[in-house]
Amino acid sequence: MEYCVFCKIAKKEIPSFKVFEDEKFLAFLDINPRNKGHTLVIPKEHFRWVWDVSYLGDYFEVVGKIARAIKKALKTDFVVSFIIGEEVPHAHIHLVPRFPGDKHGPLIDLSLIQKIKKEEMEDIANEIRRFLS
Amino acid sequence: MEYCVFCKIAKKEIPSFKVFEDEKFLAFLDINPRNKGHTLVIPKEHFRWVWDVSYLGDYFEVVGKIARAIKKALKTDFVVSFIIGEEVPHAHIHLVPRFPGDKHGPLIDLSLIQKIKKEEMEDIANEIRRFLS
Repeated sequence: MEYCVFCKIAKKEIPSFKVFEDEKFLAFLDINPRNKGHTLVIPKEHFRWVWDVSYLGDYFEVVGKIARAIKKALKTDFVVSFIIGEEVPHAHIHLVPRFPGDKHGPLIDLSLIQKIKKEEMEDIANEIRRFLS
Repeated sequence: MEYCVFCKIAKKEIPSFKVFEDEKFLAFLDINPRNKGHTLVIPKEHFRWVWDVSYLGDYFEVVGKIARAIKKALKTDFVVSFIIGEEVPHAHIHLVPRFPGDKHGPLIDLSLIQKIKKEEMEDIANEIRRFLS
């Protein structure tokens, strides 16, 4: 298979701010967060599209668990999700907490990338993990 | 419970361009389609947010099946999905097929609503249903 950045992250060949991991899935903070707590959930196995994943039910049970942890950790009832799939050709689901006045439109303005320092990214990942354990 | 338009659609008190139905879920064309084939998948039972649905795995098995049918019916490999949840306070997932030159940005421009005649909406729903049977 060709070079795949998410396969590399799944294999720990590239570091990430890890939020959750089990046998099949990995969740980590998006390195270009659109809000604090913006998380990606991927299957460790390579699939081109989310709709190709042969265990979608398991996948979304995990996505739901992480979405609920993000709600608690980031103190918001409002967590949006989107699936594009053209940015990185490895199945992944975005979870983005929303906050009053966060300047995104009704969906998410992908051009609004937040600058968050490494230390704060670690704190955010820890905080989400706290609600997953 | 207060008036909920998606509960009314689930109970057939409001008509819809139905794409799929089983005991727990209903899928129908969005009445304000952002592209041809724009579909909403809802649990018939009322939940405020997608993340509250107590059978998320079952939900996404169905969402995946419909996404794959949309790919075939609308002849595109690219079907995006998003979950907002502030438009209608009943859990729902958007599935939107993308086409070359459809003028949406990297995600979906919610203001780009397509005008599609009733007859064509029926044809589109039929075509998706054909790949679900």
